[in-house]
Amino acid sequence: MVKVLLVLYDGGKHAQEVPALLGTTENELGIRKWLEDQGHTLVTTSDKEGENSKFDQELVDAEVIITTPFHPGYLTAERLAKAKNLKIAITAGIGSDHVDLAAANKTNGGITVAEVTGSNVVSVAEHVVMTILVLLRNFVPAHEQVASGKWDVAAVAKQEYDLEGKVVGTVAVGRIGERVLRRLKPFGCKELLYFDYQGLKPEVEAEIGCRRVDTLEEMLAQCDVVTINCPLHEKTKGLFNKELISKMKKGSYLVNTARGAIVVKEDVAEALRTGHLAGYGGDVWFPQPAPGDHPLRTAVNPFGFGNAMTPHMSGTSLDAQKRYADGTKAILESYLTGKHDYRPEDLIVYNGDWATRSYGQRDKINTVKQ
Amino acid sequence: MVKVLLVLYDGGKHAQEVPALLGTTENELGIRKWLEDQGHTLVTTSDKEGENSKFDQELVDAEVIITTPFHPGYLTAERLAKAKNLKIAITAGIGSDHVDLAAANKTNGGITVAEVTGSNVVSVAEHVVMTILVLLRNFVPAHEQVASGKWDVAAVAKQEYDLEGKVVGTVAVGRIGERVLRRLKPFGCKELLYFDYQGLKPEVEAEIGCRRVDTLEEMLAQCDVVTINCPLHEKTKGLFNKELISKMKKGSYLVNTARGAIVVKEDVAEALRTGHLAGYGGDVWFPQPAPGDHPLRTAVNPFGFGNAMTPHMSGTSLDAQKRYADGTKAILESYLTGKHDYRPEDLIVYNGDWATRSYGQRDKINTVKQ
Repeated sequence: MVKVLLVLYDGGKHAQEVPALLGTTENELGIRKWLEDQGHTLVTTSDKEGENSKFDQELVDAEVIITTPFHPGYLTAERLAKAKNLKIAITAGIGSDHVDLAAANKTNGGITVAEVTGSNVVSVAEHVVMTILVLLRNFVPAHEQVASGKWDVAAVAKQEYDLEGKVVGTVAVGRIGERVLRRLKPFGCKELLYFDYQGLKPEVEAEIGCRRVDTLEEMLAQCDVVTINCPLHEKTKGLFNKELISKMKKGSYLVNTARGAIVVKEDVAEALRTGHLAGYGGDVWFPQPAPGDHPLRTAVNPFGFGNAMTPHMSGTSLDAQKRYADGTKAILESYLTGKHDYRPEDLIVYNGDWATRSYGQRDKINTVKQ
Repeated sequence: MVKVLLVLYDGGKHAQEVPALLGTTENELGIRKWLEDQGHTLVTTSDKEGENSKFDQELVDAEVIITTPFHPGYLTAERLAKAKNLKIAITAGIGSDHVDLAAANKTNGGITVAEVTGSNVVSVAEHVVMTILVLLRNFVPAHEQVASGKWDVAAVAKQEYDLEGKVVGTVAVGRIGERVLRRLKPFGCKELLYFDYQGLKPEVEAEIGCRRVDTLEEMLAQCDVVTINCPLHEKTKGLFNKELISKMKKGSYLVNTARGAIVVKEDVAEALRTGHLAGYGGDVWFPQPAPGDHPLRTAVNPFGFGNAMTPHMSGTSLDAQKRYADGTKAILESYLTGKHDYRPEDLIVYNGDWATRSYGQRDKINTVKQ
């Protein structure tokens, strides 16, 4: 008899209309009946903020906690200290930075933190390519123009460019960054660059036609478009601040589908306002949900263009929801049956230690900042 | 001493701010000084509608008329009959369907119609891929949501899909259609299909990983996304009417960056309204500028989504404007010097006969409809 606590976003009428919205409190990843048929208990909530949230109330005796990056149930050290029964925290999706991983390694003798690796890398890579095209081709004001009954081609073509012939660089070339570069290959960019602590294999570089740059600053100085695809950890938090953004080319574009806290939001908004950045787009915010007055909801460049933000949705397409619901169920089953035959790539921390280089083992890695 | 008449869209303050907006009445493709230094006359206007338009007044003694597809100066048979001095009509861009080509072959013993082939094929292909992603990933309502201060992931994820695993088909696989397929290749679509009277070479098909379908109806029945990349002529005018749209998969997406008149706008709007089409996007309208009450400005599906229209801009990015301005100047120079050493691929009608299979020689071709 295991108590499972599940934190998801509310789907409301949308979840009723579309049963494929599995990642909602109403549709519960499709696991309620399966769990209850085995005699387990499932508690689902979207209420995760403040000390008296349902999340706080229920986590004290939960053995399994499932959260997502889209509506993150932040598992802070304080919350972990209260979760005396907790054995495993599962991220339904990718990116477990909303869990204090160092604290997790010390919680109840070391809990397991696992995520569904690969479940939405394609979805995010597609969102990146879409956002690059939306920004360069100036889609947003152009669509707003026709929707509002107007017609003025010059007013939008004045900042419309082709992707062809531009230099695009990715910060980190992991599962998502590499997929972005592969999708950009046929667009005839002038150069595809990447910065990462670990290089791609020479044959992969040759296949994609991309090139590694030694320092982040050196890469940014060359790029018309920069896409951020690194995890959030203490070395990437606030990485894109005023100083680093000043190293980017004037009039370049920045796309962030990684994590909101990797950029300093006020500094990005200011760089747009002055026109140093021609555009900013992506789907990640800090915190989430983004407050109504988050500056990146409405920040634009001097032409009034250059905002291609969405809520955190790139990894929660209906196709991705199916994949992360299936993957979460597989991890749960592995835990509940006592087999613990997890896919090694899904494990973030395990047996009181880091199981991946992506978030931990700080002494051995040199991610992003040099 | 040659009189050149140039019809472009007005750039207003945008053209002052951005000299690279060459395709505007203010910046005149950058050819005024060059023409006047040779003693020629240039008259530029955006006033092209109605019998007393500047276009109508000036064309009676113009020897060269330059127009674009973005703000088309329609060269009807009536107007051609009045243009007694006309020798050459140049399209600054691609697509000369705004010229009555059959009448052009009989005007003043056969005028030349030429366009700048290739000048914006990449720009349009990029716009197609962007529009496919914008529709499938439900970008428009998602961006509007955050811009208006809201946060409701389920409300937009309910119709968000990955491009991966979908079937995409192009109507015609010419310079643009093939470029679209090449750009889609790394997205891992389930299938890439095309319908055209002429097949790609087997090695090109193998390289792209696409497949020809024998009839248009057969292709439409298989596609999640259909992109229209054929020229407008009498056999494609109104091609996507109620009957043909009914052959498309329920919930599929239609993208049109070819010409507005290839679809019956009321039938597309109705198919969106019923949800038979999940989305429609692109940048072409008939007529242009689109009237304020054109139904495709605001047509949406039952969820209120699925409109990704822009004004006619895909081929007029600043990069494309440079290319078509250069190409127009090259054609002009070839004419003015009397060399007539045009690039063969730029000629549409020449010496009183069709010079391309794209618009004419109807007996020999079997474009699109079988």
